[in-house]
Amino acid sequence: MRTSIPANLKLGFLGAGQLARMSALEAFRFGIQVSVFSDRSENEPVQFMTPFSISGSFESIDDLVAFAKECDVITLENEFISSQILKEVQQKSGTPIYPSPESFALIENKLIEKQTFEKAGIPVTPYQLITSESDLKSFGEKHGWPYLLKSSKGGYDGYGNETVRTLEDAIKAFEKLGGTKGHDIIAEAFVPFTKELAVQVARNETGSVVYPCCETVQENHICVAVLSPAPVPERHQKRAQELAIKAVEAIDGKGIFAFEFFLTENGEILLNESAPRPHNSGHYTIEGCISSQFENHVRAVLGLPLGATKLNAPAVAMINLLGTHSRSAETDHISNALATENGHLHVYGKVQSKVGRKMAHFTLLGDDLDKTYHKAKELTRNIEI
Amino acid sequence: MRTSIPANLKLGFLGAGQLARMSALEAFRFGIQVSVFSDRSENEPVQFMTPFSISGSFESIDDLVAFAKECDVITLENEFISSQILKEVQQKSGTPIYPSPESFALIENKLIEKQTFEKAGIPVTPYQLITSESDLKSFGEKHGWPYLLKSSKGGYDGYGNETVRTLEDAIKAFEKLGGTKGHDIIAEAFVPFTKELAVQVARNETGSVVYPCCETVQENHICVAVLSPAPVPERHQKRAQELAIKAVEAIDGKGIFAFEFFLTENGEILLNESAPRPHNSGHYTIEGCISSQFENHVRAVLGLPLGATKLNAPAVAMINLLGTHSRSAETDHISNALATENGHLHVYGKVQSKVGRKMAHFTLLGDDLDKTYHKAKELTRNIEI
Repeated sequence: MRTSIPANLKLGFLGAGQLARMSALEAFRFGIQVSVFSDRSENEPVQFMTPFSISGSFESIDDLVAFAKECDVITLENEFISSQILKEVQQKSGTPIYPSPESFALIENKLIEKQTFEKAGIPVTPYQLITSESDLKSFGEKHGWPYLLKSSKGGYDGYGNETVRTLEDAIKAFEKLGGTKGHDIIAEAFVPFTKELAVQVARNETGSVVYPCCETVQENHICVAVLSPAPVPERHQKRAQELAIKAVEAIDGKGIFAFEFFLTENGEILLNESAPRPHNSGHYTIEGCISSQFENHVRAVLGLPLGATKLNAPAVAMINLLGTHSRSAETDHISNALATENGHLHVYGKVQSKVGRKMAHFTLLGDDLDKTYHKAKELTRNIEI
Repeated sequence: MRTSIPANLKLGFLGAGQLARMSALEAFRFGIQVSVFSDRSENEPVQFMTPFSISGSFESIDDLVAFAKECDVITLENEFISSQILKEVQQKSGTPIYPSPESFALIENKLIEKQTFEKAGIPVTPYQLITSESDLKSFGEKHGWPYLLKSSKGGYDGYGNETVRTLEDAIKAFEKLGGTKGHDIIAEAFVPFTKELAVQVARNETGSVVYPCCETVQENHICVAVLSPAPVPERHQKRAQELAIKAVEAIDGKGIFAFEFFLTENGEILLNESAPRPHNSGHYTIEGCISSQFENHVRAVLGLPLGATKLNAPAVAMINLLGTHSRSAETDHISNALATENGHLHVYGKVQSKVGRKMAHFTLLGDDLDKTYHKAKELTRNIEI
């Protein structure tokens, strides 16, 4: 456990998007410096927030080691680097990486992830490793069509996932996802869920804290809103929280983790996805909870005591503000959102807007979840980015 | 009024200390970039938070104009630049400065400040411009000894102020403060106050918002704690808020302003000091109010609608954490403070600690002001910096 913050303590982020940005704000609050590694040529959100920024390849050990040597602790904002590379970077630089490469190795591959969580007694969606056309066929016969094909590596907001309706679909998707090139592809049964839930957990050597169970509202596999607490019976909320804690323990996680669940028609809760980092489902915690997922991310990876996760209001709604134009970014028509008591606008500082790109979000605190969600939608309806 | 935030909008800070730092965090939240002008050789708090940082002299028009040209709006974090220089920089760069040089001109000089506020009907402490030994004598005879001598320019945390007990004292202090070199020196009667109060107000073309009236607890002219709402009858709180609004209007202020008052034994409220910027008395608003003084500073100078100033809890206590050593900064023994629900630690990222230097602060939210203040002191008692 860390009991002091020395001058010039430097936290390094692998990745420079909005998740690192919102984490960096919390690091700054504690007087901690922020260093950032980016693999993009365009300026990224965190690069406007620190003089310590370098660009390189997520696959170059040399680039990553040079970066790591300048930092006291490294953390991730995405899952684009392999655990093997992280392990080598940690070894060669001597700089600890959290979540650890060992934890990350258990979830970077969807097949190993599912096996790990299943072994820990966590219900997951029915799945199978697919290696042949006959696997594609038999999975559909056993679990019904349509089902999902997923590349076992990568995958983000629906990328790397294909919904397949027929065997013909499945064969095409299998090839598209790289199955014929030797990539591990898994099939997942389509679960007729009633809600999608999410829970964040922060954990380190000082203990763990779990956030309220929230609902994520998705359109076309993109999260458009998050509601907390999730409008489901309390026993479901508690069950999701229990499973999330179990899942973090199963991978001996240090940092902040997010778990997404399906609530099925018969009241089962199945683990769907996990993320070893702050997650869109937890943006509402910035104002919605005493200590946000970003603050606890920073606390967790630095070995500081964790902060309280209680809700600050009976109801919290978060609206993702996606790009409405492809243009030089401009967050427009924001007056109503800004002028609303208990409304909080966050803009990520991206230079380019693209239709559907996550550019900003708006959080509203209130007393009644339905009304708060409705009002948050109204207040953001005219925003163009 | 501004209704949109374009990419690459850049807010420039003249000054790079903790006030600019905490303001910058709010600018970042809105996707706004931060540029900083520093007159120090050592790295300052905000310089670790942006790639856009330049050093120069607060007296060099060329340095300041070059900086201003890179920014969309400029704001201040201290009162070290003269309004005349600000005016010239604004004119030559074309970049607006808020608070405006015109507003600033009305408060940079303590004599003009007092005259301005008096004219607006705001009670101020009895004062007089001192130009001779006989003025020193007659002021003491009229208002009693001891009284205060203040340089009409500058002054910060008691610097530039002298308490004088005798005519001999007064003659020495007058010389020390530059009175014999032609600096304007004013005498101020010592007011036997029961409490020191403060109120922050944000104002721009969209309107104005006023924060709760808080109490500032001082030791040796240094603020050690702030309690909100101030433990005084509501009529005194309201009176201080009314006077604060009147004061901002008297100088046509755009930005965030802080006003410090004396509450006298007979229930009078006298304006003591004003600051055209975020102020130590308002640090508690980060967690204590819906929108903090820093957020409203950013909103105000950029012409955005202002945020709500309501308290988030019945009682808020803020403890200033001053340097306890002269050493490379290290904020030590912070576990208790961090592990406390509703406790919020802010470290300013200064590289060097000095005894008495403002290095960090701790805010605690609670239900009862006395208990919350007592607990906050207990939680921070062992912190060493």
